[in-house]
Amino acid sequence: MDPKILADLVIPGAAKIVFLIMDGLGGIQMDGKGGTELQAARTPNLDRLAEISSCGLMDPIGPGITPGSGPAHFALFGYDPFEYNIGRGILEATGIDFPLTEQDVVARMNFATVDPEGRVVDRRAGRIPTETSQRICKKLSQELRAGGGVKVIVEPVKEHRAILVLRGEGLRGEIEDTDPEREGVPPLAPKAAVREAERTASLVGEIVIQTGKILAGEPKANMVLLRGFAKHTRYPSMKDRYGLNSLAIATYPMYRGISRLVGMKVLSEVSNLKEEFRALNDHFPKYDFFYLHVKQTDSRGEDGNFDAKVAVIEEVDQYLPQVMALQPDVLVVTGDHSTPAKMAGHSWHPLPLLLYSKYCLVDAVKMFDEVSCIGGALGRMRAVDLMPLALANARRLNKFGA
Amino acid sequence: MDPKILADLVIPGAAKIVFLIMDGLGGIQMDGKGGTELQAARTPNLDRLAEISSCGLMDPIGPGITPGSGPAHFALFGYDPFEYNIGRGILEATGIDFPLTEQDVVARMNFATVDPEGRVVDRRAGRIPTETSQRICKKLSQELRAGGGVKVIVEPVKEHRAILVLRGEGLRGEIEDTDPEREGVPPLAPKAAVREAERTASLVGEIVIQTGKILAGEPKANMVLLRGFAKHTRYPSMKDRYGLNSLAIATYPMYRGISRLVGMKVLSEVSNLKEEFRALNDHFPKYDFFYLHVKQTDSRGEDGNFDAKVAVIEEVDQYLPQVMALQPDVLVVTGDHSTPAKMAGHSWHPLPLLLYSKYCLVDAVKMFDEVSCIGGALGRMRAVDLMPLALANARRLNKFGA
Repeated sequence: MDPKILADLVIPGAAKIVFLIMDGLGGIQMDGKGGTELQAARTPNLDRLAEISSCGLMDPIGPGITPGSGPAHFALFGYDPFEYNIGRGILEATGIDFPLTEQDVVARMNFATVDPEGRVVDRRAGRIPTETSQRICKKLSQELRAGGGVKVIVEPVKEHRAILVLRGEGLRGEIEDTDPEREGVPPLAPKAAVREAERTASLVGEIVIQTGKILAGEPKANMVLLRGFAKHTRYPSMKDRYGLNSLAIATYPMYRGISRLVGMKVLSEVSNLKEEFRALNDHFPKYDFFYLHVKQTDSRGEDGNFDAKVAVIEEVDQYLPQVMALQPDVLVVTGDHSTPAKMAGHSWHPLPLLLYSKYCLVDAVKMFDEVSCIGGALGRMRAVDLMPLALANARRLNKFGA
Repeated sequence: MDPKILADLVIPGAAKIVFLIMDGLGGIQMDGKGGTELQAARTPNLDRLAEISSCGLMDPIGPGITPGSGPAHFALFGYDPFEYNIGRGILEATGIDFPLTEQDVVARMNFATVDPEGRVVDRRAGRIPTETSQRICKKLSQELRAGGGVKVIVEPVKEHRAILVLRGEGLRGEIEDTDPEREGVPPLAPKAAVREAERTASLVGEIVIQTGKILAGEPKANMVLLRGFAKHTRYPSMKDRYGLNSLAIATYPMYRGISRLVGMKVLSEVSNLKEEFRALNDHFPKYDFFYLHVKQTDSRGEDGNFDAKVAVIEEVDQYLPQVMALQPDVLVVTGDHSTPAKMAGHSWHPLPLLLYSKYCLVDAVKMFDEVSCIGGALGRMRAVDLMPLALANARRLNKFGA
């Protein structure tokens, strides 16, 4: 759906939409467990809701495509995940709540170890402790100097991972990675991918040389490797696109960061499920779109811990009556992608999807799981189409054409 | 899915993928037969496989579009069938295993009968016997002369059908058909559709005049009509696109030809089902993608012979345990398009589709037929999306985005 056409259909309204997103929710059957995580979980509240909802299966991106959390979330919010495939540097920055400006070019920075001839011997600098990285980043931020009024900021993320931010007028993001992606060779020189990025590439080149000098005395982190350069640009907001005043309730910085990129108000004081659902309750009068993100389903899936993922799903189920008591006009329950415990990682599998509203077509699905949802009224759809459907159910979309 | 984005996600692997393609597999209910061909067929092995697989319905191209074998196969191999809608001349050439080069412009050539005033009186020259066509083609290949170092080759196909190949530097394929598509008028002059093709069009014009003189004494085939001009270009291979070393096992030249166009290794020594499945077994260690093509389902469908098509399906079912014994990582069973016996021809109907892998979401489908597969986890999908799904199930695709 062309976002401009959609934006033209949007009508102001007071109806409230809740997206309850269990990260990595989808699963596949695991041997000896008698089904998928959702099939194994006791979810009386979700099942009761499925009975009065439209259900279906949802592809985060498309058949066979396993998404990272970035594109999966952009799709959920109705943003074309191919168009908004944000750079790794930007994603890392959002992940540490770093306040980006539209003057910023960002790259992911890995500390690395080079030998006296400058050849990379460890691309991760022995995974130095985060404390070491914090100290080094502070030093770099203080001592690095770029010409032309450009400010250089180095922010630690975790262990050997950091971000490099160049802030100034006229910077460009089209710069190739300096990470050679193997050991035994020197880092690559930062190369402009387009002529307009040559000045920025040359600034990055100077920064790398200075960094080598500043870190010369470090036993492990004596060089940096840069990748995923990107210019930060302002994204159209949920308000611009859908007329929604949106609130993000998430415990992990990266999801808060992505929400901020699409103009949501972000709560940062929540740190567990109970607080998240209480926050939904407390802020319910003030917004009309709520994104409530549950991280633990994904984490337990990534651990390959089927039973623990089941337990998280069951815990979330217990909060559902609280959500229903708020009487949202539209309630969507789904995930951003699948993380089957059997695979201990993200996967391409479609997700179960449930949409409740006063105006949904009620199908015959009576259980909320991957197999039951196949028979649902929403059929098999792509995540990027979910937002228009939610808006329609909130009666916030006008008729298209006369 | 943009093939460049997909190609960037491909990771090398050893996992093996088998596509068992029954040509024209799909059917519709036939009066008095109690169902479709697949519903009528006794297929215990396919049904058992369906129980542990993901099933669905697949549109070869899109709703309502009846494909020829060319676009249907390109879609199956993940190539956009609209982009790779290869010229009729090229398809005929692949169908006779003619070794094309990147210097070739090819057209389909029909022998026709013209009256003394040069008007077409029979566009198919009374469907002359193939032997006559072979003799005439040989003569034309020997006697036709084009200027500028261009070689002219005429190869018989069947009855009045042949191909014309111009081989040389700088030839272009943008030439309009000379076939007037009706009788009582003379053939059209070969006209360049773009300025750069004018030289080639003029060469074709000379060839047509020479052909008229050479064939003047023929009682029926005294003229030729040309259509579907196209320059042969190299297609991206399955190796380029998916990193797959592919083997095609097919008894019919056209399917071998299409496979060759996408860079598969092609077995030519197989001539029946038994040999095809034995070849799969014998070559299993050496490749990682196998396309096994069963022609007879389509042929019996084209005959309108419901029972004979059922018998072919049942025969293929008997070979299934042999395939499963090879333990392929991914096994796909489907067709390229439907050929319902009731219609005695290709149709637009969706095909039943089955995908088995260790990581597939097992749905409730327990029978492999058009109606049962409606309830499958793959939903309704397009053939062009099948290859990414197969690669994902073989764990040969990286995550998209961070």
